[in-house]
This record gives sequence, structure tokens and C-alpha cells, in this order.
Amino acid sequence: MASRGKFTIVLMILQTIFIILFGIFVKYEKTDQADGQVPGIRNFYPMFKDVHVMIFIGFGFLMTFLKKYGYGSVGFNLLLGAVVLQWGTLVEGFFLHKFAQFSVSIVTLINADFAAAAVLISFGAVLGKTSALQLVMMSVIEIVLYHLNIYIGTEYFKAADIGGSMFIHVFGAYFGLAFSMVIYRKDVKAAEDDAGSVYHSDIFSMIGTVFLWMFWPSFNAAIAEGDGQYRAVVNTYYSLAACTVVSFALSSLVNKRGKIDMVHIQNATLAGGVAVGTAANMVIYPWGALIIGALAGVVSVLGYRFLTPLMDRIIRLNDTCGVNNLHGMPGLVAAFVGIVATAFAKEDAYGHSLKTVFPGRFNSTMGEEIRSAGTQAAYQAATVGTTLAIAIFGGLITGALLKPSFWEQPRDKQIHSDEDYWLLPDDGFPDRGFPDVKVITGQVGPIEMDNNTKI
Amino acid sequence: MASRGKFTIVLMILQTIFIILFGIFVKYEKTDQADGQVPGIRNFYPMFKDVHVMIFIGFGFLMTFLKKYGYGSVGFNLLLGAVVLQWGTLVEGFFLHKFAQFSVSIVTLINADFAAAAVLISFGAVLGKTSALQLVMMSVIEIVLYHLNIYIGTEYFKAADIGGSMFIHVFGAYFGLAFSMVIYRKDVKAAEDDAGSVYHSDIFSMIGTVFLWMFWPSFNAAIAEGDGQYRAVVNTYYSLAACTVVSFALSSLVNKRGKIDMVHIQNATLAGGVAVGTAANMVIYPWGALIIGALAGVVSVLGYRFLTPLMDRIIRLNDTCGVNNLHGMPGLVAAFVGIVATAFAKEDAYGHSLKTVFPGRFNSTMGEEIRSAGTQAAYQAATVGTTLAIAIFGGLITGALLKPSFWEQPRDKQIHSDEDYWLLPDDGFPDRGFPDVKVITGQVGPIEMDNNTKI
Amino acid sequence: MASRGKFTIVLMILQTIFIILFGIFVKYEKTDQADGQVPGIRNFYPMFKDVHVMIFIGFGFLMTFLKKYGYGSVGFNLLLGAVVLQWGTLVEGFFLHKFAQFSVSIVTLINADFAAAAVLISFGAVLGKTSALQLVMMSVIEIVLYHLNIYIGTEYFKAADIGGSMFIHVFGAYFGLAFSMVIYRKDVKAAEDDAGSVYHSDIFSMIGTVFLWMFWPSFNAAIAEGDGQYRAVVNTYYSLAACTVVSFALSSLVNKRGKIDMVHIQNATLAGGVAVGTAANMVIYPWGALIIGALAGVVSVLGYRFLTPLMDRIIRLNDTCGVNNLHGMPGLVAAFVGIVATAFAKEDAYGHSLKTVFPGRFNSTMGEEIRSAGTQAAYQAATVGTTLAIAIFGGLITGALLKPSFWEQPRDKQIHSDEDYWLLPDDGFPDRGFPDVKVITGQVGPIEMDNNTKI
Repeated sequence: MASRGKFTIVLMILQTIFIILFGIFVKYEKTDQADGQVPGIRNFYPMFKDVHVMIFIGFGFLMTFLKKYGYGSVGFNLLLGAVVLQWGTLVEGFFLHKFAQFSVSIVTLINADFAAAAVLISFGAVLGKTSALQLVMMSVIEIVLYHLNIYIGTEYFKAADIGGSMFIHVFGAYFGLAFSMVIYRKDVKAAEDDAGSVYHSDIFSMIGTVFLWMFWPSFNAAIAEGDGQYRAVVNTYYSLAACTVVSFALSSLVNKRGKIDMVHIQNATLAGGVAVGTAANMVIYPWGALIIGALAGVVSVLGYRFLTPLMDRIIRLNDTCGVNNLHGMPGLVAAFVGIVATAFAKEDAYGHSLKTVFPGRFNSTMGEEIRSAGTQAAYQAATVGTTLAIAIFGGLITGALLKPSFWEQPRDKQIHSDEDYWLLPDDGFPDRGFPDVKVITGQVGPIEMDNNTKI
Repeated sequence: MASRGKFTIVLMILQTIFIILFGIFVKYEKTDQADGQVPGIRNFYPMFKDVHVMIFIGFGFLMTFLKKYGYGSVGFNLLLGAVVLQWGTLVEGFFLHKFAQFSVSIVTLINADFAAAAVLISFGAVLGKTSALQLVMMSVIEIVLYHLNIYIGTEYFKAADIGGSMFIHVFGAYFGLAFSMVIYRKDVKAAEDDAGSVYHSDIFSMIGTVFLWMFWPSFNAAIAEGDGQYRAVVNTYYSLAACTVVSFALSSLVNKRGKIDMVHIQNATLAGGVAVGTAANMVIYPWGALIIGALAGVVSVLGYRFLTPLMDRIIRLNDTCGVNNLHGMPGLVAAFVGIVATAFAKEDAYGHSLKTVFPGRFNSTMGEEIRSAGTQAAYQAATVGTTLAIAIFGGLITGALLKPSFWEQPRDKQIHSDEDYWLLPDDGFPDRGFPDVKVITGQVGPIEMDNNTKI
Repeated sequence: MASRGKFTIVLMILQTIFIILFGIFVKYEKTDQADGQVPGIRNFYPMFKDVHVMIFIGFGFLMTFLKKYGYGSVGFNLLLGAVVLQWGTLVEGFFLHKFAQFSVSIVTLINADFAAAAVLISFGAVLGKTSALQLVMMSVIEIVLYHLNIYIGTEYFKAADIGGSMFIHVFGAYFGLAFSMVIYRKDVKAAEDDAGSVYHSDIFSMIGTVFLWMFWPSFNAAIAEGDGQYRAVVNTYYSLAACTVVSFALSSLVNKRGKIDMVHIQNATLAGGVAVGTAANMVIYPWGALIIGALAGVVSVLGYRFLTPLMDRIIRLNDTCGVNNLHGMPGLVAAFVGIVATAFAKEDAYGHSLKTVFPGRFNSTMGEEIRSAGTQAAYQAATVGTTLAIAIFGGLITGALLKPSFWEQPRDKQIHSDEDYWLLPDDGFPDRGFPDVKVITGQVGPIEMDNNTKI
């Protein structure tokens, strides 16, 4: 049960800390151009906007499928995003600049959005089963581990993961799943009938799906360079197309009466964007992108249809949005594809872009080769292993820290319901009345007065 | 009645063919830049994204107005788009490169989106009256004829049609209408009460309308050059504004009680983007763009109000979304405007852009004039004539091919309803219960288990 | 009660006037580039599109929260936008070019969108309480005063207001509030129960909120130059993040049971974009942007919670969307921040951008300083004062002009209802039946026939 005050205090303390730390560490980028133009605006801002739309409209509306958790889905998505844009900026700077002052560029904004993506993927695993308090604290802890993992993966392994399928999708999914496992409560079963969608909430959800689908080429290409950026766009575009066709085909097949399931269309159609992410800027050829997308569709639909219910029943691992099927397993496919593509990367296929796609293979000053393709492939494998380890271990610890009743995890009918945290209009929820809420709105000043403000 | 298996098999066969053909024919573009940048990214990617949004959000949500066909509208829109992005890439390459290997550029992606637009316009004419099987096969056939028509129009007539009002809108509309006429079944009347909207489905539809409206300047300017691109943006922007004002004015006028009809606001307000499409990059002046837009609003509202019901009653031509009023007739207006603007195009008004706007008039190597303005105008007329002929004839043939019961055209209450193809949540549809569906969801494993995945 | 004909005649007369005036005054921009490219396309078009989305999706859907005014919110938003895009282009040209011919550039399109923003903010103050006739006439009058104020503020005071927080937000809000005060009618109380939201209308509203939130950095940076543009993006991005965190924190605090109010999440989270607008391109530092955003969240939530109900009760000032809390007071905060930041602006912090951020301080030809920082700060203060005066006085006059019954202001149950102006589907409104509407749709030909068009 959400109590008054605690939520406010936690957020105000966090925001105060952010302001102080920004005052100490964060400064503006200096322009080096004759015309005073900061090049980041021209080169990265258009891509940044697409990523921004994916984070706040894409993830936010994708999760509105729950019949009674629409406010929480799009609302807490916005709140967690707002927390991470600030905290992610700080933590990234701390790792990269060793607690010296640092400047923010447009790429910094993109990276803060990427960090938000990881947190929002974890949010999907526990959607409707956690309090806003738990979600905010989870975000604060997860971001530190997220950047620790990226620091290891980029500074030491120098892994290639242009679309962040390992650093963002695998990390966010398995951190969230481990977290979900620890905070699991039997009363989730009591809220089963609120765990589904209604007709129009599925259509709200498709707003998120389609924006994610359309802008995923920008997500995978946002920080790519040269013709690697071109390949990232083309590969992602075609991978998603193939994934969509296969998702429709399998969704119908796995249903006894041949019917298509909106859960698959809302989620599995996007798996192609994840699965191609690590190798998006590599020379995998358009036909390779189609195969990767098709494979991702198969893995994702079968995961939703068979694996998720099993996990829920056998190991009490409850995955509200099925992030294992959209981000987890397709992310592992991406990591595998990345290892293979890295192992076979040759100069004749890549030309000058071999150095930009695989910076770890070449000396940054002299430019001569310091790692073979095979060695780099091994480092790719080490990166996904490290990512899994930090994500799962971190998720378990975080779950243990946030399970105590102090963090006000919702119970029974509060689960999968906005009722715990949100003022509801007099109509309650679209599919049934809410007598108790009616009473509330009768008692309380605020909603009365806020209603007046709209007269 | 949709059967299990057939839909899956057809999609899997298609996807397999796409992968094989991509493997044989499609390769990456080679960069020619010192910095390895592929110029297409900077010059065309921002426009591509807007077109992409129009195809998948614009068309997808515009069609969600039907009270019980929301899943099918946005879902099949995504499926058909995904099929055409792949198939359209291949067929365009076959025509342009005579079955030699070809590379994909960002312009290729834009053209694949344009091809999807034509198919989705045809989809609008038969929305709710066709099976997914019929829609997929229709797309496969239509794309071949679509590119045949463009090949004739651009290679031989060298027509100017920067916004594709002839090649995309006229073709898509009349192909779809001819197709609709052939597959017409009397039992459409039995589903009349499901053919309308409910209050919130009209608002979902406005998401599509507004995104189409906002990004139409990008649609008409996407592949334009130099100051022709500037004119395409400005002309489309003002044409849409005038069309919107006139659509509101007439919508109220043609109703006995002076009320505005959402059908007109959702559709007729967009006719200005179609009607200015062919001449968008020509020197028609801003006031000319306003007149074209206003005219389009008149044609479209009157079409919805009087012509569509007549066609339905008299020649049994049923047009679910009224594509004749949004794409067909405004496209013919665009073709006519294009003929006139072409006939009066002079060097003093166009300057250097005369060669880029009317490539057919000049020798590509030497650059001297080989066609007079009048001659080019005649070729413009020939292009719209050819487009109508191929579209109508092709639509009739395609309808005949896909009418057999093998293709599972929906009947009676399956018409205008997601019930035939989609798993429905327990609430059935927003405006009434679905006892039979409740039974289904009670019987079937999949939805049970998928519900669990969301707990 | 809306009558048939009057609405049509007014719109057709306006559109005819627009066409004539465009014919006399508006011409194309001449390109000065070797490649014929109009530079505006590359430099301003990407920003223009984001602003365009904010105007038509952002404002349009933000206002759909009313349970029975969804058609009017997104529909009239589109109509008023379409009127202002044309009329705003003309009036701006008249002021800047003294009734000589002028050319339209991409910046002209951005400025027309900005003008639409001011009108749509005023629309928010009277949402559901005015006829479409009143709204159209209000827009026509408001735009003249809007550009008069900008002319004074930019030509004489040479004020810095890159995000238009004074020229757009303060002006639009207080014009609308003064207008609302004059047209106030007691029967607004009779429609109290229609003044709220239903569950899914709040989610529609969040579509508007999130798009406004995401693209606000583009709004504040659209016409900024050099590194000032970079600062406008970064400052707005972080200001919005801090504002969002604080809005959630306070929304929960001001409710007796600690519940979050969607009204605050839909609106107050955006106040940070307004409050940072005037100083967005100035050197306020990221930590300063966070403080401004946090302050805006406090002002906005407290305004919704306490001030708006008070204004409604004590001075009969009814503010449907609470524009005073989202645009008015945060705009005044922006003006104050702008005065302070201007007073302390020094060369060493700004470098070469001091001249572009504060053009009023330097001679345009020679470039030497003609105004001190303090003097410019005084002019900033004069600008906000003039803006308030013109907005309030103009709003009062406009309200008096449009209050007569000739303008068909809605009464009683027509208030906050689409019933007065729109054909409604047979289901009436989602939360209850509409017997009278059922009768109407039974009588009238048009809706019957339009239904047929969808069969």
C-alpha cells in the first residue's frame, strides 16, 4: 500500500543530489567550429530524437496493454526515464572521467536514453508488481551496474555492440528477471484476472510497438560511423521486416484455432531489431539480416507461447511483459551473431570501416592490428558472459534490498492496478466499477478541486 | 473462416523466397566518400523516417476507426508493410537492373515505403472484407504491377510525379476499388452495424490522420532535389492547410443539422497532400497550392457524402475507407494540375531547376532540350491514363484470382470484425459482449497461457 | 447551439481572403546555392518537423482528456492550426515587410507553427466552453496582436526569448484567460460532471504530453544559432527531467491519500520546458537548468492544486486545461530567469555567441556594444510587461467582441461536449448512452449514408 510522504521524500532527496552533483561535475561542451556550431547537433541530434521517441512513447505505450495499469505504464515510464536521464549522465561521467568535471554532448544525451532503455526493460519484467518506490530505487542501483558493465565491456574487452543488444537488452532483461524472481509473491495469482488486456488497451499498446519498430534502425545506427551507420540502418530495416512476417506466421500456428495473438504482434515483431543489434554495422549482408530477423521471430513467439508460462509455473519467475522473449533471448542471439560476424570480419569486406567497427583490433594511435578477428570474437563472448553475470547477480541483490515492506510492494488487488498509486476518475476502470474509489473521490479535497479546475 | 496452417504456410514460403532472392540479388552500397560516410544517410534518412511514420502509424491508425477491426487495421497494416518492404525492394531492383545484382540505398528504402503506401491504399478499399491470406497475395501481385507502371511512366514517358500522386495514390486507389468490386459479396450488408466507429475508435483514427497530415510535406519532398524540394515542402504545407479549412466548412454544410462528420476530418483534410503531389516541386506558387488544396477538400467531402454511397448502391462498389475520395479523385486532380503546370513550365520561372523537375525534357548527357513543355504535358497525360488502365485491369484480374473460397474471404459476422483472425481479450469488443469468444478463450490453451505470461 | 451555414460561410470567406492575400503578397524564396539547395531545408526542416508534431499531436491530444470533447479537442486543434498557418504567415509578413511582397522560408513555417502554439494555448483556457465560430474568430484577432507584440519586442526592445516563453506562452495563456473571464457563463457549473476525464481519455492525453515533452528541446532550439542551439537542447532536456521528478513528488504530496493526479502528470511535467525557454540558449549551466525545471514543477503542481480552483471560485476565472499553471506562471518564471541571466551575461562565458544570443546589445553593422548587460535586462523586463498588457487587454476586448449570441457560445449540456458540433456514432459517449443523439442519427440522412460509406 502506497503511503503518503515517503515517495515524495525519496524523489526530492534524489533530485537535490542530482542538482548538487551536476553543479560540481557537469559543464557545457566547448565548440571548436568557426561558425560556433556544435557538430553534435548536425551529426547526432536527428538520431537522438528517434531514440528519445522510442524510450518515452515506444516503451511507455507498449506497456499500456494491461487493462488497469495504463497510468502506471506510461506515467512511471516517464518518471523513471526522467530519473535516469540525470543519474545516467552522472554515472557515465564518473566512469569515463574518473570524477573529474566533464561536458555533456548530444552523444551524452543518447547514452542517457540508452541507459533509460535498460531500466525500462527491467520495468517490463515487474510491471504492475512493484511500487513506484521500488522502481525508482531499482533504477538508481541498476544504472550503476549498467555503466560498470559497459565500462568493462568497452574499456577492457573493447566489444563491438553498436545497437547495445548485450549492454542494453541482455543486461536490462536479465537484471529485471532476477529482480522479479526475488520479489515474487504468491498473491500475484490473486490478480490474474487483471493481468490481461482489454480491446482498446491492446491498441494503445500498438502505438508503442509501431514507434519502436519504425525507429529501431535509428537506435542501432545512432552512434555508428561512416558506412557502418548505413549498414546498421539497412540491416535493421530488413531484419524487422522478416521478423514481422515470421511472427505473424508462427503466432497463428501455435494457437489451436489458428488465431493471431496480439501479445506476439506487440512484442515478437520487434525481436528482429534486438537480434541484429550487435552486428548491425558489420558486413552481414541484407540476406543475413533477413535470416537473423526470421530467427528472432521464431525464438520470440515460441518463448511467449511455451517458455514464459513454464518459467512462471516451475521456477516462479514471473515476466509481466515477457522481456525474456523480446529482449533477453533475442539479445543472446545478437551476441552470438556478433561473435560469428566478428570472427569472420576481413579487410576486403570492410575496407576502411574495419577500424571503426572493431576499434579493439587496432592500436588507437598507430592504427596497426593488435588483435586478430578470432581474438576479438573471444572478447565478444567474454562481454556477453560478463553482462549476464553482472545483470543476474545485480538483479538478485537489488531484489533482496528492495523486498522489505518498507518499499511498499503492492499486494493482492493492488497488483496490476493503478488504484494503489493513482487518483482514478469517477468511472474507475473501463471494464468494471470501482465502488471503493468512488468513495475516495467523494472524501478527498484534491480530486474534487482538480475536477473543478477542468470545468 | 480462417483455417489454421494455410496462413502460416503462405507467409513462410514467401519469407523463404525473399531470403533466397536477397541472397542472389541484393548487396550493400559502396561508399565513395573520404570519411566513409554514405551520403544517403545525411541527405535522405530524415525524409525517409517521416515517410516510414506515415506508412506504419499514419495508415495503420487511420484505419482503426472501425469499432471491431482495430487489431486487423494496425496489425495487418504492419504485416503487409513488412511483406512489401522486402518484395518491393526486389521487384524494383528487377525492373531497374534487369535481374543483375543491385545495391540498396536509403532511397531504396524510401521507394519500398512508397510501394507499401500503394498497397495500403488498396487495403483501405477492402478493409474488413478480406482475409489476411487475400491481403498478402493481393500485395504480392499488386507490387509487380505497381513497379511495371512506374517503369513505363519513368523510363518511357519520363513523367514528373514527385509526390507519387499518380504512381502511388491513383494506382493504389483504383487497383483496390477494382479488386473490391470483384470480391463483393452481398453479406457485407449483414455486417452493416459493425461498419461504423465508436467514440474512442474515431480518436485512435485521428492519430493516423494527424501524423499523415504533419509529414505529408516530407512525403512529397522526400526525393525532390534543390529548390524543387523547398517548393515541395512549402506547397504541400499550405495546400493541406487550405484543404483542412474547406473540409471543415463543407462537412458542416452537407449535414442537415450542420454537424461535422469525423469521417471527413479523418480523411478529406488529407486530400490536399494528394492533390498537390504531382506538381509539388513545380512553380505553382503558394496561392496556387492553396487553391489546389481547397479544391481537393471540396472534391473529397462531396465524394464521401454523395458519391461513395451511390457507388455502393448502384454499382455494388464498396469502399470501406473511401479511398476514392482521399486518394483516387484527389490523385486525378493532382494529375490534371501536373499536366497544366508542365505545359506552362518555362526557364525564367524555374531557372536551373527546370532540368531536375522535368528530366524528360532534356538530354541526360548533353542537356539540350529534346521535348517541349507541351510534349511533356502530353506524356503526363499518357502516364495517368496508363496508370488507370494497369490499376483497374490489374485489380479486376487480382480479384478474380483471389475470390475462390480457397482464400477464405470472411463471411457474415466475420466481416468488419477481428473475431475471425485474432484472439480477443475476455471483454470481447468495447460495445458489446462476445459470448462465443468467451467460450473460445475458455477452451483454448494459448490464450490461457498467454494470459498467464502477463500475470 | 451551432446553426448550419454560419460556420461554413465564415470559414469559406476566410479561406478566400487567404488565397487572395497569398496571391498578392507571398512568393517563393530564391535559392543562392550553386547546387540549387535552399539552405533552410537542411538547417531548419528537421527542427520544424518536431515543432509541427508538438502543435498538432502534442496540443491536439493533450486536450483529449475531457471525456466527451475528444473530437473537438483534436479536431478543432487541427482546424485552428490550419487557419493560423495561413493567417500567421500573412500577418508576420505584413509586419516585417510593411505590406510589400515577401517570400516564405522554412523559418516562416516554424514561425507560423509558433503562432499556432499561442492560439492553441488560449484554446486550452476555454476548451469546451466556446463554439467553433468563437474559436476561429478568436484566432484571427489573436494572431494580429500576437505579431504586434513580437514586433514591439523584437524590433524595439530586441528581447532575447529563444523559446518564446514570453511571446508564445505568456501571451497565449493570459490572452486566453482574459478571454475566458469575459465569456464566463454560470451554466458552466451545470456541465461539471462532463468536465472530467475517463480512464482511457487520460491515456489519449498522455500521447500529447509525451510528444510535447520529447520534442521541447527542438522547440526551444529551433531557431537558435551556433553553440546557443546546443545549449538550448541540453538545458531543455535536463530542465524537463528535473521538472518531471518534482511534479511526481509534489502531486503525491498534495493529495490527502498520497495519490498521484494525472492532471499534474499530463501538464506540470512540461512546465520545465516553458520555464527554461527564454534563457534556453544562454549560459545558465546544466545545474541551473535543473533548478529552473524543479522550480517550474513546484509552481505548476501547486497552481493546479490550489490556485486554479480558487480563481474559478473567487474571480470566476475558469481555466479548463489550467494553462495558467502550464504556460502562464512558468512563462513568467522564464521571463524572470531571462532577465537575471541577461543581466549577468559576460563575454568570457559566452565567447562569440554573446552577439547571437543578445543581438540587441550590439550594433548590427559595426558590431560594437551599444547596450550594457543591465540595459538589455531592463528591456527584457519591458518585453514581458508589454506582453502581459497586450495579451490581457487584447483578450478582454476579444471576449467582449465574441460574447454576443451571434457567435453561438454553447450552453448547459452542450458545454464540454462534442454533441453540439459533431456527428456522434450510435454508441454516443463511452461512459453513458445519449438517447437524444440516437434519435438524431436515426433521423438524419448524412450519418446514415456516411455509415454506408464504411460498410
